[in-house]
Amino acid sequence: MARNTQVAADHNAPPVTQILAQFVATHPGYLQGGWSAAVEHEAHRTFMNWLGCAVGASHHEAADAALAAVTMLQPAAQATLPGRSEKVDMASAALINGITSHTFDFDDTHLRTIIHPAGPVASALLALAEHTGASGRAMLDALVIGIDVSCRVGNAMYPDHYDRGWHITGSTGTLGAAAACARLLGLDVPQTAMALGIAASQPVGMREQFGSMTKPFHPGAAARAGLMSALLASKGFSASAKALEAPRGMMQTVSTKNDWSEITGELGQRFEISFNSYKPFACGIVIHPSIDACAQLRAQGVTPEQVERIELRVHSLVLELTGKKEPADGLQAKFSVYHGCAAGLSFGHAAEEEFADEVVNRADMVALRRKVVATVDDSIDEASADVTAVLKDGRRVHVFVQHAIGSLQNPMTDAQLEAKFHGLSDRVLGAAKATDLLAACWTVGDAVDLQALTTLARP
Amino acid sequence: MARNTQVAADHNAPPVTQILAQFVATHPGYLQGGWSAAVEHEAHRTFMNWLGCAVGASHHEAADAALAAVTMLQPAAQATLPGRSEKVDMASAALINGITSHTFDFDDTHLRTIIHPAGPVASALLALAEHTGASGRAMLDALVIGIDVSCRVGNAMYPDHYDRGWHITGSTGTLGAAAACARLLGLDVPQTAMALGIAASQPVGMREQFGSMTKPFHPGAAARAGLMSALLASKGFSASAKALEAPRGMMQTVSTKNDWSEITGELGQRFEISFNSYKPFACGIVIHPSIDACAQLRAQGVTPEQVERIELRVHSLVLELTGKKEPADGLQAKFSVYHGCAAGLSFGHAAEEEFADEVVNRADMVALRRKVVATVDDSIDEASADVTAVLKDGRRVHVFVQHAIGSLQNPMTDAQLEAKFHGLSDRVLGAAKATDLLAACWTVGDAVDLQALTTLARP
Repeated sequence: MARNTQVAADHNAPPVTQILAQFVATHPGYLQGGWSAAVEHEAHRTFMNWLGCAVGASHHEAADAALAAVTMLQPAAQATLPGRSEKVDMASAALINGITSHTFDFDDTHLRTIIHPAGPVASALLALAEHTGASGRAMLDALVIGIDVSCRVGNAMYPDHYDRGWHITGSTGTLGAAAACARLLGLDVPQTAMALGIAASQPVGMREQFGSMTKPFHPGAAARAGLMSALLASKGFSASAKALEAPRGMMQTVSTKNDWSEITGELGQRFEISFNSYKPFACGIVIHPSIDACAQLRAQGVTPEQVERIELRVHSLVLELTGKKEPADGLQAKFSVYHGCAAGLSFGHAAEEEFADEVVNRADMVALRRKVVATVDDSIDEASADVTAVLKDGRRVHVFVQHAIGSLQNPMTDAQLEAKFHGLSDRVLGAAKATDLLAACWTVGDAVDLQALTTLARP
Repeated sequence: MARNTQVAADHNAPPVTQILAQFVATHPGYLQGGWSAAVEHEAHRTFMNWLGCAVGASHHEAADAALAAVTMLQPAAQATLPGRSEKVDMASAALINGITSHTFDFDDTHLRTIIHPAGPVASALLALAEHTGASGRAMLDALVIGIDVSCRVGNAMYPDHYDRGWHITGSTGTLGAAAACARLLGLDVPQTAMALGIAASQPVGMREQFGSMTKPFHPGAAARAGLMSALLASKGFSASAKALEAPRGMMQTVSTKNDWSEITGELGQRFEISFNSYKPFACGIVIHPSIDACAQLRAQGVTPEQVERIELRVHSLVLELTGKKEPADGLQAKFSVYHGCAAGLSFGHAAEEEFADEVVNRADMVALRRKVVATVDDSIDEASADVTAVLKDGRRVHVFVQHAIGSLQNPMTDAQLEAKFHGLSDRVLGAAKATDLLAACWTVGDAVDLQALTTLARP
């Protein structure tokens, strides 16, 4: 039975579990000068976008199924499920809200790692803050801190960790959620290290699940696991103090690449939430440039009826992730750049309605999808798309999108985010309540507790 | 951003998710001739040993901390925590019972993979069976099936998966628990595949946690995740139907070695529970040959006072896993072959009492530990130990243990298992109740439900 017991272990990693615990427990909050007004504004945008997504998908069949399962546990009515009237215990709320926030693939994206950071962190935080009576200020501070932890760990492991098969949102999200909840609970440095350590044993999510309900389950399970890790640590449960960086700790176990300086560099000065982005389209980010390009074709007067063929040139990753040519339903269509192009040209946008089963299966949409001829061109960045509409009269109309709307270079404005929020929330809460909820999001940092906001989030 | 997106993906794996789902949902139970009486007897031994361990550690500080955290969720009183009077919801019971069953490192071992199979599977099953009113027969059938799933997946991935850093008990246990709960719930083949798929996104546990409470947390979290995966599937929650075997499914993501034939070979004919073993000593299995050897020295009349030096020759893995020379407390002592030798020579056995903090820190035990000189010899199997006591009068007494007591070659008898059960349970439940609980374990296959057994398990 003799054998090598570890491949390429790094025994000289810096003590990043301890370093992050120190940061999480002691970095000053916003009111103490911990970060800039720009970071603070991004935290509000992140929270608001997360909440809109959760409300929007609150009655999706994935949410119904998850709630039905949780209901078998006879949960206490501790925490709100935004968009629904039921309440459940805070851990189950973290799970379900994490699921709903990612169900439409419409949530935020930390572009460098493709992490959707708010799902795990905000889902855990709102449930914990609501039940414990924490202030909106404390929750927002914890949001900034928690997202910093998950995205820094992601920066350290990306791309190897992702390429290996991990859905990086869930695998790093557990740590972000644990950090955020430890911060909100006011845990000291040693307890925070234990919370991170317990969370380190629970990375969630494989990419094979893309296209099933288990994809949005990942941020939900990460939120739940992170919240419970913090609760366990608060009661004296112990873990390794080197759970992240040790040779058989989490990071070396799930990734060959580990650039520790990504965790320690400018910690407390540069905040990863600054690099968060928000989706204008309700699908995977790699389709966005193609949708944007086709929407621009439409704005230039090209109609589906005129089109003989759409020539699409994209990076190989785009087709690898979203190459479904004949999506059978809305969920599959989110992984179809072909449907994305058809939606962009037909509607000029691609929100959740444009991914509804009945739209996806419309004969004109099926026909238009089949006119898209995709070619791999790895000289084109995966954040770009090159589209040419070849018209029946022989004309060729060309659009190259370098940075799609919603990218860091071309971000959604606050007004666009508010419109997106309304698009998601109005049909669930009614426009008036959605407007009030939006206002509560912009001022959540001043809220003495989360009661008013969560009340507005229930229909 | 161009890059290789997967290392050595296997695109030709057999559909093991589907194959296992078919097996789990449709293989005949014991009364229908699904397996032999020998397998059935081993199932009873496995369940009884698991329950004794859970009762024994039910008031450990790890259990107290976990229960305190779970109590913050205000859980419904659905399921018993053996050894305690409190009840919690069935998912939280799965978590806590999984923790207690592994806290003493005294539970069962599937020796080929070092999986402790009962922890995740039985912890989920008893909670679910108790709350849903399932029969003891149905629970035992599900136990055999669930353990088969986790150990077969373990066989396929071991040793690479373990060497990489995974605590294989938790990472495969989620699947075993999901399979068992799917079986108990009577899910059909497609739903069972979904339960396995949801579970596949939740492997738990890193080896770096050994020596902390998070080690026993692993089977607990696996039990909880597996139970919830089955509940979710029963309510229509979906996952990839190839979640185990796909290139970016669980198994290829967490292991380079994947021998699919270990899953499919003799499925339904050979049952991995047949190869389960039970620990006579309350610590990691690699120390057992050394303890056994020192206990044999004691039986030959060697006393600690006579000893000048103990020369221990073992495989390198023994020192790698259990090389703590100066353990500070009982938990650390479980990872100290030095303390194991001292306990064997001093007491002739090493149950939980011999790993109590006060015993570990006794001056004579510290002194005796320091007399142990360990040498690596990889020509000795990791399941063996070569011990020579060098006495103060110059005599040398040599013992070589090829197969320690508790191994497959030298298994504990039913009577020894009963004595172990009493050793764990009497001080918690009282001897009379422990005797009744033992009897209930041997006849659990005939029980119409689990009410009588779980009542006996509460003090």
